[in-house]
This record gives sequence, structure tokens and C-alpha cells, in this order.
Amino acid sequence: MSVTAAAGFRAAGVAAGLKSSGGLDVALVVNDGPRSAAAGVFTANRAKANPVLWSQQALEGGSARAVILNSGGANCFTGPFGFQTTHQTAERVAERLSTPSAPIGAIDVQVCSTGLIGVGDESFRQAVLTGVDRAVDALAHEGADAAAGLRAAQAIMTTDSVPKQAVANGEGWVVGGMAKGAGMLAPGLATMLVVLTTDADVTADVLDRALRAATRVTFDRLDSDGCMSTNDTVLLLASGASGITPDEASLTDAVVAVCDDLAQQLQLDAEGASHDITIEVRHAATEDEAVDVARSVARSNLFKAAIFGNDPNWGRVLAAIGTTDASFDPYAVDVAFNGVRVCRAGEPDRPREEVDLTPRATHILIDLFAGDATASIRTNDLTHGYVHENSAYAS
Amino acid sequence: MSVTAAAGFRAAGVAAGLKSSGGLDVALVVNDGPRSAAAGVFTANRAKANPVLWSQQALEGGSARAVILNSGGANCFTGPFGFQTTHQTAERVAERLSTPSAPIGAIDVQVCSTGLIGVGDESFRQAVLTGVDRAVDALAHEGADAAAGLRAAQAIMTTDSVPKQAVANGEGWVVGGMAKGAGMLAPGLATMLVVLTTDADVTADVLDRALRAATRVTFDRLDSDGCMSTNDTVLLLASGASGITPDEASLTDAVVAVCDDLAQQLQLDAEGASHDITIEVRHAATEDEAVDVARSVARSNLFKAAIFGNDPNWGRVLAAIGTTDASFDPYAVDVAFNGVRVCRAGEPDRPREEVDLTPRATHILIDLFAGDATASIRTNDLTHGYVHENSAYAS
Repeated sequence: MSVTAAAGFRAAGVAAGLKSSGGLDVALVVNDGPRSAAAGVFTANRAKANPVLWSQQALEGGSARAVILNSGGANCFTGPFGFQTTHQTAERVAERLSTPSAPIGAIDVQVCSTGLIGVGDESFRQAVLTGVDRAVDALAHEGADAAAGLRAAQAIMTTDSVPKQAVANGEGWVVGGMAKGAGMLAPGLATMLVVLTTDADVTADVLDRALRAATRVTFDRLDSDGCMSTNDTVLLLASGASGITPDEASLTDAVVAVCDDLAQQLQLDAEGASHDITIEVRHAATEDEAVDVARSVARSNLFKAAIFGNDPNWGRVLAAIGTTDASFDPYAVDVAFNGVRVCRAGEPDRPREEVDLTPRATHILIDLFAGDATASIRTNDLTHGYVHENSAYAS
Repeated sequence: MSVTAAAGFRAAGVAAGLKSSGGLDVALVVNDGPRSAAAGVFTANRAKANPVLWSQQALEGGSARAVILNSGGANCFTGPFGFQTTHQTAERVAERLSTPSAPIGAIDVQVCSTGLIGVGDESFRQAVLTGVDRAVDALAHEGADAAAGLRAAQAIMTTDSVPKQAVANGEGWVVGGMAKGAGMLAPGLATMLVVLTTDADVTADVLDRALRAATRVTFDRLDSDGCMSTNDTVLLLASGASGITPDEASLTDAVVAVCDDLAQQLQLDAEGASHDITIEVRHAATEDEAVDVARSVARSNLFKAAIFGNDPNWGRVLAAIGTTDASFDPYAVDVAFNGVRVCRAGEPDRPREEVDLTPRATHILIDLFAGDATASIRTNDLTHGYVHENSAYAS
């Protein structure tokens, strides 16, 4: 179940000719209310795509009635023409969804795009607008069921091998979501588009706090290849259709759960990866330092290539953490690979032969002996598959 | 010509059983004076190998009579036993080189090691000490000729495919050098050992300034894979044997020239690379910002994989520079690949088909239109060869 799990939402996924395969490439998620509260987190990259520039601005009022998403073109670095395309897309959605009793403006429409940077010409524009028409038509027939949610999740896939959906149930209310992303997964958000929906009856301020709390410990700690995208967008919409207002902690827990589930799905589907690595740092002086240390390892190509080769190369772990400013003594650190402590207090401990790195799930434990804070980063290994996908696929 | 190009220096390269191939693995460079001025730059990594901890301390007086180097083991994270090995190695060199009229202390001996982290047990120690004896014996026969310099350069190779040497001639004086390094080449020095020699008659202070000026614009701007080593060491020794004291600017120019030559040789020999990439940033607000912007691109795995695939993917360049804090407008930037401007003011310009990325030498030009500063970073592409070497070779 997905974006349609929460009451008050409809979705559609249609083919509009943006993908040369003819596959689904335009998705629409509509919030039928009664509430239209919304919050968003966008890429920290200064090079923001046109849809991000638009959506960030449009969301300032804390409200959104619909999200239109396309794969097959990022509409980034496409100039004023590209920005006009985003604007026209939002206008078309608004026109088509408006009723006399419930008019919708372009400002009520969030726009997300993914695909190649630099793609956004006239034919792209026409295909997206065609997609809007087809998606609105599809909504009318079948918009509120799980199959429609699945098609929306499929329509935003690029190099993803599977659609990604998640749900968490509260007491009488639900949080659901969908995501795309399989590479360029980095700090300050993965290359990904995520739409989360809830029928809880909450304000935009509550949504904003819950979403930021969730992305901080989930998507922001997924660092597949250290690269930050221009199009990252995570949206959370509330319809209020359940009529229930959960306490903020319960809502936050549910949003965290859905984001964590989606973040793990993104990790498992990372381009060309053969290991899904969790780097856990314990006993750091602060949580931020734990994150810094874990991320330094996640960013080490030498470490990542060693994992691909099933090599428990703890020297590369220590060489990576030595580049950080975190509080610890490099010669008082323990490192374990999949439960085998191969380095104790900066010296060799158990023989590397005891470590089994053949499973895909890989756990690196770094104990800094410098405090009480803990954090984990999810990453992947550096493989021939990664090099192949990212050299052969122009994105 | 190499470390023996300057008058007053002898060198040796011998096999001591550290390399399983039986190849040369211990090198010795001796400064016969009359002067013994020296300067060094060491890894910025907080995780420093035992030889670095020793040498940094020993060099505080600005003097060194000899440098002993080994491949086949980094002697890093080997605990107090490893530090004692380094100390014993320096003592053995001092004992063997001392004469009644010119006694040498361990403090006069710089020690450098390269190879696997965590290797430094009793058999390692004995092999290194055997290497010291053999190297001193070899010195007596043939130490001052070019062949001896070449053998020293060969003895420090690890995954290097070729020995690396360079020379620059002043008016009556010379600067020569050797280097090893083929991966883990990153900021704040590449994974490399470099020994530079000169017969100019200059003080340690002059050497120190010349060396820091040179490494800042050469080795510090070589960023092959973003990984910083635990053992990086660059030493510059002066014998004064020419009797000539050049002006400081001339000496600095010569040191820069030798370092630049060696840095390029390191780039050309980077593990598994198929492209040698120069990323040039023009019109930055400051030189530091130019370096930051160029390095952000050099660190992007997506960019590096695209170059491997001969794909002039300027979107990945802009996505990388958008992660920096440098002064520029991401939508006013030009990007050219090998002389073809594919992006102008943040929009597509010449068709990507016009770019020929088949040559190994690759030039990326980024114009920020934000000031007058320029800087370049040298890097390599991300290839199947890199993944193979760094997953199959435990280092």
C-alpha cells in the first residue's frame, strides 16, 4: 500500500511518451481533503532544478492539493523555458482538477521531475502536459485504490528496479508513501522523489516538524555514492479525512517508520550494489560526530571497493575516520565487521579470515570510546555494476 | 635522474623479503653533506603511521642525514611494537652509517613505510633490519650513480607500474626526486612517499618554505580517489655540496617543477584509470574557492564514471559544484569538455556529440564568472580497473 493508503487521496500513473520504453512516466497524487496541509524538504544542492524552485516557493503557505511527478527528464539547467514548463504543468493540473465549488490554483500544485539534467525542450513540455491530461482522466476511474498507488510509484522509476512503497498504521489514521531513487543517494537527501500522505487531521506546522525529524534520521543518513542531486524532494500531505488528530509524537513515529522503510528500500535497490552496508558508530561525543565518522567511511571508495571484494579491510576504515574532526583517539578505536572485532584499540585483533562478507547485508561497528552518542549511515559497496550503470547510462 | 642527481647524495635499493615477489623493497638515501638541512610535509590524516609519528618528531630540528624507506608494510596501527620497529630501524641506519669523525644518531634518520595497514610483526621488523644492512652495503659500491637512484625508486613501488623520478637544473645546482603512489591520492597529500634532494646550500627554513609552497600547488591538488593515506611523507634534503646558494624564488621554482612533474607521473599511473583529468576552474572569487569547486567535481563518483564512459555529462559537473559554498551563481556557469562548451550560463550549449573523450588526457573547464582566481585539480576516472584493483588487492 502506498500514497492511497490514507483516506482522502487519489493517485494515477500513466504513460506519456517521456520514457522511450513506453512505460509509465507521469504520476499524480491528489489530496481531496477536507484539509490540504503540506510540508516539504528539498535538496540542499545550490543547483536546484526548475520543479524544486517552483515547489519550494509554492509550498510556503503550508498547503498543497496535488503533486504531479514525471520521470524521463529532470527539467534542470533548462533555463527560463524549463521554468515556464513547470509553471504550465502546475497550471494544467489546477485547471483540470478545479471544480466550481473547489477551485485550485497553480500554487496548490507541487511539481517533481527526475531523469537527465538538461532535458526540458518543447517535446518534453508537450509530453508532460499530455501526461497531466491522461493522469487526471485515469483518476476519475480508479484513483483511490492500491493499484493506482502502485502505478504512480511505477511512473516515477528511473534506474530503479522495483517500485517502492511503505505504510504505517496509527489508531484510526495512516501514513503511506512512495519513493524513487537508485543512485546519487547522498546527504541532505538522496536523489529521490518521495511523496508521503496521511489522513491524520494535523496542521502544516506539525507536518513540517514531523517530516524534518524523520528525514534527519532516515534519508539524510543514506549515502549511497556521496553525490547530491538537483531534484530531491520529499513531500508530506495531510487530508484530515480520518477526522483524528494524533499526538505529535505518534505521528512523528509513523512518519519516521515510513521514511526508514523507504530509505532501506532505496539502499537495497542502489545501482549495481552487491552489499548493503550499515556503518554504526558507537560512543561518539555527539550524534553529529557519530554521523560525520560514519559518513567518512561511507564516502571512502577504497573501503567500498574492499567490501565488494569481501575484504574486511579495517585499515581503510581507520584511514577514513582519521580525516574527520570528531573527538576520539585513532589509537583507541575498535572496529568490527559482521560481528568480528578485527581491530581493538587501533591494533589487529581477530584474524580477518574469521569475517564472512559473503552476505549482502553488511554491518560495520566502530566504537570511538569518546562519549554516549550513536548513529548509523547506510551505504553500498563500489562495484563493477556501479561503474557500468553510471558510465553507460547518461543521467 | 633522481635523488642522486644532486651532488652529495648516495642511494640504494635492495630486496629484503618484504615483497612476496622478491623484488626490491628497501631504499636508502644518504646525505653526505657538508650540510644536512631538511624539511618535510606529512599526512594530514589523524591516523598517522608509526614512521610518520617518528619522522615528524625527528625532523623538528630541521636536519636529516638519511632516509630509509620500505614497501611491503605500512607499519600503521601496529601498536607500540610497530613504533619500536621504526625506532630500531632508525638506530640501525645510524649505527651503520656512523663514522668516528661523523657520528649519526637515530634522530638524524627519517623513516618511511608503505604497504598494508596492520602489517608490522616480528618478521616484518627483521626483514626491514636486514634491508638496512643490505642497503648500507650496496651504498658502498655504487651509491652515487643514477642506477642506484633508480633502484631506490623501484624499491618503494607498491601498485605503481613504473618508478617515478624527476629533476630540475638550476645554475650550478640541482633538485631531484623520486616518488611512489598509485592510489589513495587525495588532498593534504596523495598516498605517496616522496624524497627530494638538492645540492643547493640553503637552510632548513628556506627548504621548508619552498617545500610547502610546492606541495600546496602540486601534490595537494592531486585527488585521484578522495582517500587520504596514513603514511604520506614528502621530504626535501639539502647537501650544500654545490657550494651555491640560489635565491629563494629560483629554488622554489625548481622544487615546484620537480613536484609538479612527479604529481603528474602519479596521476598517469593511478590504479585502473583510463582518463587523466584536469579540472580547471576560472574566474573564481578566490584561489581557495577555485580549488573547492574543482575538488567537488574530482570527488563525484558519478562524474568520474561518466568520463570512463566517454560521456560529457555536464549535469553531473553542475550537480557537484552546487554542493560547495563558493561564490557563484549556478545558473551563470559555463562548462567545457576538451574545448567544447556544452553548457553556457547554466543551459545546454554545443551538442554533446561534438565532444571527443576518447583521448586519455581530459580537460574540464569551469568558468564561474565570480572573480579573477584560477586553480586546477588533477584526478582520474572511476573505472572497472579501479574497482578491480581495490577489491582484489588488500592494501
